[in-house]
Amino acid sequence: MSNDTVRALQWSERGLRVLDQRRLPSVVEYETFDSAQGVAEAIFSMRVRGAPAIGIAAAYGVVLAARQRYRENPDNWREAIEADLAKLASSRPTAVNLFWALDRMRSEIGAVEGDPEPHLLQAARTIHDQDIAANRTMGDLGASLLVGASGVLTHCNTGSLATGGYGTALGVVRSAYRQGVTNIFATETRPWLQGARLTVWELEQDGIPATLIADSAAAYLMKSDAIQWIAVGADRIAANGDTANKIGTYALAVAARHHGVKFMVVAPTSTIDWRTESGESIRIEERAQSELLNEYFARPSSVIKAWNPVFDVTPAELIDCIVTERGIVRNPNRQAMKVLADAG
Amino acid sequence: MSNDTVRALQWSERGLRVLDQRRLPSVVEYETFDSAQGVAEAIFSMRVRGAPAIGIAAAYGVVLAARQRYRENPDNWREAIEADLAKLASSRPTAVNLFWALDRMRSEIGAVEGDPEPHLLQAARTIHDQDIAANRTMGDLGASLLVGASGVLTHCNTGSLATGGYGTALGVVRSAYRQGVTNIFATETRPWLQGARLTVWELEQDGIPATLIADSAAAYLMKSDAIQWIAVGADRIAANGDTANKIGTYALAVAARHHGVKFMVVAPTSTIDWRTESGESIRIEERAQSELLNEYFARPSSVIKAWNPVFDVTPAELIDCIVTERGIVRNPNRQAMKVLADAG
Repeated sequence: MSNDTVRALQWSERGLRVLDQRRLPSVVEYETFDSAQGVAEAIFSMRVRGAPAIGIAAAYGVVLAARQRYRENPDNWREAIEADLAKLASSRPTAVNLFWALDRMRSEIGAVEGDPEPHLLQAARTIHDQDIAANRTMGDLGASLLVGASGVLTHCNTGSLATGGYGTALGVVRSAYRQGVTNIFATETRPWLQGARLTVWELEQDGIPATLIADSAAAYLMKSDAIQWIAVGADRIAANGDTANKIGTYALAVAARHHGVKFMVVAPTSTIDWRTESGESIRIEERAQSELLNEYFARPSSVIKAWNPVFDVTPAELIDCIVTERGIVRNPNRQAMKVLADAG
Repeated sequence: MSNDTVRALQWSERGLRVLDQRRLPSVVEYETFDSAQGVAEAIFSMRVRGAPAIGIAAAYGVVLAARQRYRENPDNWREAIEADLAKLASSRPTAVNLFWALDRMRSEIGAVEGDPEPHLLQAARTIHDQDIAANRTMGDLGASLLVGASGVLTHCNTGSLATGGYGTALGVVRSAYRQGVTNIFATETRPWLQGARLTVWELEQDGIPATLIADSAAAYLMKSDAIQWIAVGADRIAANGDTANKIGTYALAVAARHHGVKFMVVAPTSTIDWRTESGESIRIEERAQSELLNEYFARPSSVIKAWNPVFDVTPAELIDCIVTERGIVRNPNRQAMKVLADAG
C-alpha cells in the first residue's frame, strides 16, 4: 500500500530487527536482537516505543526466549522461559499492551508440542499482522469522519513507528490524506519531541506533506480555521471513555472544544481498561525533571524545580469520537462504550 | 529591594554593559558596547530582548552616538547622528517601544546646548528609571488582584531581563511572591525557551522558588487547581484590548477560561497602539522554520515544513484584566480602555 513503507519491527531468522527511534531523524539504524533479554533492553532503553509496538516486540521476544530455552534443554523450557517472560514484563511496567501480548503468548505456550519456535513465531506474526489490519480498519473508519475536511492535527507519534505498522491516529491521517485531506499538521510534542523527530520523519518517508508546529501554537492554528479535526492516540482508555495520552492531549481537547474543532481518539480495543471506571483513577507517571530543566538548575540547593507528567487525562466529554477496530463510539460515556465490550 | 537583583542593562562611563541573554543560564557574561552601531548589533543579535529593554538600550545607544558625533565634529553632530538613529531603528523593526524611545531621545536632541552627552544621558537614565518605577507600580497593582491566590503561571520572559528591571508580568509575580503567593509556575516557551532559560534563571537569582512546565502541560496544571491566575506580558495591545504576545499566550487564555482561571496582561501604556483598532489588523511575524525543524528536513525537496509564528493575538474577551502603570482595566474593551488614554 502506498504511503505506508515504514516498519520499525522486522522479524528475520537471526532475530528481531529494531529501528532505533532514539536516533531519528538524523540516523536510520536497525539493530538485531537475538534474545528476550535483548528485546527487553530495547524496550527499556526506548529504542522501541508506542504501546502496540512494545506488545509486538515482546511477543517476538517470547519466540527468541523459546528458541534459546528449547536449545538449552528441550525437557524443561516451559519452566525456564518464565524468567524471560518476567524480564519482558518488567521492561515497561505501565504498558497495558505489553501484558496483553505476553498473556496471549503464554496461552500459546500451553498448545505447543515439540520445538516451540514455529508455533510461537506464527503466534507472534499473527499479533503483528492483526495489529496492522486493525490499524488499517481504524484508519479507514477515522478517515470516513473526515470527509469534507481540509485539515487535521495530530499529537505525539502514533504511526508505523509506534505500532506494528500504519499507525492508529497517524493511520487515520494516512487514510485521510489519500482521501484528499491535504493540510496535515503535527505538534512538536515536548519534552521528547516525538512529533518533531518521529511523526514528520515517517510522513516524509511516505511522501505525505506535513507542517510541524510548536505545541503552544495549536490553539492559534485552530483559530485560523486551518483544521476541522484533531486525531490522537491513547495510552489507556477508561470504561467511561476518559483517555490517558501524551501530555498536551488535554490542552488540545480544551482548545478544540473552544473552537468547534472535532476531537478523535484512535486506539485498538486492547487499550481499553474495563476495570478502570474513569480517568480519575489513572495514575499519571512523572518523568525526570532533567527533561525540562537545564543542568544549571540540577544542583540540590536550586529553588527551581520542574513538573514533568508524561500523560494527561482527557475527560470523555471533550472527546467527539473514539475510533477502534470494532467501530466508532460517538460522544463516549460508560453506556456508549459498552457496545465495544459486547462487540468483543 | 529584595527579590530584585538582576539588571541586564547597566550604564558605565565606557558604554552600555549588556548581559548576553543568548548564553543564559549556563554562562553569565556582560559585554560593553561603546557605539550606537554596537548597541544596534546587540539588539539585532538578540543579546538584548524584550520590548522595554530594547527601547532602553536604544536610548543609551543615542547617548553613545552623540558622544562620538560631537567628538568628531561639534558643529554638525545633529545631522550626523541621524544615520545612527536610523541604524538603531532598523535593529528590530517590529518593536513599538524602540520607536517610542528613539522619538523621545530625538526630541531631547533639540533641547541640547553644547556637549550633548550629559543632557542625553540624563534623558536615557530617566527612561530607564521610569521603566523600573512603572514596573514596580504594575507589580503592586497586579499583586493586589492575587490576594488570596495560592498559585500563578507566567509565560515567556517578562522580567528584569526583558525590561529596565523588575519586569512586567514577572514583576507581578515578584510582588505576589512577597505577598505570600508561593506556587509559581513558568512555561518553557518554545521554540526559544525564554521561560526555561531566562525566567527561571532570574527567579533563581532572586531566591524565588518556581516550577518549570512544558507549554503543553499548562492546561493539565489548571485542571489540578494549582493556580488561580495567569500573568503574561504584551508585545502590542490594540485599542480594544486585544493583545499580541508570545506564541502560546492565546492557548493559555483559552484554557484559563475553560477552567475559571483568571487571565491578566501586564504592560506599560507605551505598549498600547491606539491606532490599531483590534487584534485582527496586527500582522504576526513568522520566524525561521529551522527553529522547529530538524536539519534533516531542511533540504528543498523535503515535504515537511514548519509554521513558526512568533506571536499570537488573544482577544480582549478572554482577558480579565490589563494592568498598566496608570491603573487596571477590568474586562477590557474599546470603551474600558479609553480610561488609560484619558489618564495620560
